[in-house]
Amino acid sequence: MTSKQMFVPRGFRFAAGSAAIKKAGRDDIALIVADTPAAAAGVFTRNRVVAAPVVVSAERIASGRCQAVVVNSGNANACTGEQGLKDARRMAALTAASLGIDEALVAVSSTGVIGQPLPMARIEPTIPQLAPKLSEDAWPAVAEAIRTTDSFAKTASRQQDGYSILGLAKGAGMIHPNMATMLAFVLTDAAVEPGLLDTCLRQAVDRSFNAITVDGDTSTNDMVLLLAGGASGRAISEGSEEAGRFAEALQEVLLELARMIVRDGEGATKLVEIQVTGAASEADARLAARAIATSNLVKTAFFGQDANWGRIIAAAGYSGAEVDPGRVRIWFDDVLLADNGLFVGGDSEERATEVLRRDEFTVRVDLGMGTGSFSYHTSDLTFDYVRINAEYRT
Amino acid sequence: MTSKQMFVPRGFRFAAGSAAIKKAGRDDIALIVADTPAAAAGVFTRNRVVAAPVVVSAERIASGRCQAVVVNSGNANACTGEQGLKDARRMAALTAASLGIDEALVAVSSTGVIGQPLPMARIEPTIPQLAPKLSEDAWPAVAEAIRTTDSFAKTASRQQDGYSILGLAKGAGMIHPNMATMLAFVLTDAAVEPGLLDTCLRQAVDRSFNAITVDGDTSTNDMVLLLAGGASGRAISEGSEEAGRFAEALQEVLLELARMIVRDGEGATKLVEIQVTGAASEADARLAARAIATSNLVKTAFFGQDANWGRIIAAAGYSGAEVDPGRVRIWFDDVLLADNGLFVGGDSEERATEVLRRDEFTVRVDLGMGTGSFSYHTSDLTFDYVRINAEYRT
Repeated sequence: MTSKQMFVPRGFRFAAGSAAIKKAGRDDIALIVADTPAAAAGVFTRNRVVAAPVVVSAERIASGRCQAVVVNSGNANACTGEQGLKDARRMAALTAASLGIDEALVAVSSTGVIGQPLPMARIEPTIPQLAPKLSEDAWPAVAEAIRTTDSFAKTASRQQDGYSILGLAKGAGMIHPNMATMLAFVLTDAAVEPGLLDTCLRQAVDRSFNAITVDGDTSTNDMVLLLAGGASGRAISEGSEEAGRFAEALQEVLLELARMIVRDGEGATKLVEIQVTGAASEADARLAARAIATSNLVKTAFFGQDANWGRIIAAAGYSGAEVDPGRVRIWFDDVLLADNGLFVGGDSEERATEVLRRDEFTVRVDLGMGTGSFSYHTSDLTFDYVRINAEYRT
Repeated sequence: MTSKQMFVPRGFRFAAGSAAIKKAGRDDIALIVADTPAAAAGVFTRNRVVAAPVVVSAERIASGRCQAVVVNSGNANACTGEQGLKDARRMAALTAASLGIDEALVAVSSTGVIGQPLPMARIEPTIPQLAPKLSEDAWPAVAEAIRTTDSFAKTASRQQDGYSILGLAKGAGMIHPNMATMLAFVLTDAAVEPGLLDTCLRQAVDRSFNAITVDGDTSTNDMVLLLAGGASGRAISEGSEEAGRFAEALQEVLLELARMIVRDGEGATKLVEIQVTGAASEADARLAARAIATSNLVKTAFFGQDANWGRIIAAAGYSGAEVDPGRVRIWFDDVLLADNGLFVGGDSEERATEVLRRDEFTVRVDLGMGTGSFSYHTSDLTFDYVRINAEYRT
């Protein structure tokens, strides 16, 4: 991950520090600040059990403006009641005070254990220490500080048309100790109005973070924030060709981050794209891809390197999508394994098993019903997944 | 399982034999015959990918009459195209001929590997050997012959009001080698009209086989058949008090079989009832119970004996049910662990961990929104689940 070239948008500064939230000696609190109030858009968890920082940030991002984000790892501030809301607002207020900006321009984000109050006694003195450390180069420290069980920091960027897009994310499926969370902070120095920013973000999330699964659970803390500061001087207007290019680049950044989260999925050894084509509609393609990507049987077969097309066709069958087994074709990369719902025979199984030995491969399922298509990314289900999630406290 | 008293309805005979479908030397084909055509009802898989025997049997059971069921294990006759339909009909025709009855009165059922043609060369000569062996006492041999990876045969019965209900089932989650299947054959010597029989069966399945999960996958071959032969001379009419008692006893038999299937779930070490109460509606209770029972995170926590109420409340939160975390209470058996969405504290976690050491326990989640309630049964997700499903061909 370190060798790739990264493009950092102008007009943002970063800092990280340690509040010893879960353990001492590692950075667990981070700050992202735009030089001036940025246009902002956000996508938040759909879980009805919503963590306090999600409640606070969703309210504030609704204004379309945001200048700073303060994030902590090690504690999700979820299922913490009224005290949790107070603590989230206090984090924002301290951040605003240290930056001399309006409190309403500060978003808050948390990830980690749920059901425990934030250790405010350690967080309160740490926040004011961040502002003096802010620097344009410290974005890797932010990517590090937001990690929980992530085995690597997740960053992606694009540069085009005189502006850059940078994404910093965390997530490894359902996250040790208690809860899944994925967070992503995406920054650009293009100038984009909040309305267009929101549209672009929703589209991009739909085909990236909303099209991955490690174990099918949705966290109480999921949050994707997109800030457009405009420091590049490049303005992007609705309906323009540039807007299309911006949307595309944004989706690329998000998809790159999403694939990293699946690759880093708890216990995962494989990154598999489930590509459904020929569905009666895009909605049907999404249903089928999701069912296949989520099936424990399919995921254990990937782990076992078993070219088990029967489990794949069965998952498509119960997905709710229109499926006529007599029209289904299934490939593992370029190996056709089932045609018209029947096993192809010959050496196709041996060749598909070869594909399954790879770290990354694509399963393509053509339903033969129409032109709808959709892709999900998934991981395999392994002994380590069970170990990580079963043995955490024992 | 062998020590309990079993009640066998009059008017049915049973036989089992070996066609060496998957391996030689064990019974893998079985026959259930009513002395006269019985009233019949059936519930079949909702998977769009439907095995050939399901297609054939659903057509025939629609008439409300059935006299014989021929079942094989070792091969699901699924994803086998036109040949599969021919083979299923041929099994029924051979059975009908050997019994001297109308072919339309014979249902067919299969379970085992999918995507491979039935070995008809071995099945055809075996079927005619079953009729001469038919006996009233051979029902345990049928329960044995329909097993695949089941570690024990599953039977349950009730006797009341002068008639009996006997259920024979198979199922262990998604079944080695390739496919989940649960089959259940339920027989009674009460006289019940097909319409009432169908209503009773659907209600009973709804709260038994449709309220269990091992891994959330739905098989191509699931089938529950209920035959009412009437040999007891006891007639049950719609709307009567007896009808209510019949429906209740039927549900008890099915729930007992369903619990056995979960207990025998692949790799499972625990049988857990997820009881949701206080939901805004029964539909909401079902959504929440299902999400909790299906969550890999919840199931691995059960395996790890981790009283992880955060994963439970999070699963309820994304289930689609109306959830206000501030009203949620969670018990492990009689131990209250979360109240108003907050951790109770004290020694509640230690006491809940004690409950988790048990082989069977109940997690009760009260949503505090209304009076809807629903229960699911689930198993834990273990290393053995992954091993069984990943390593089958390696």
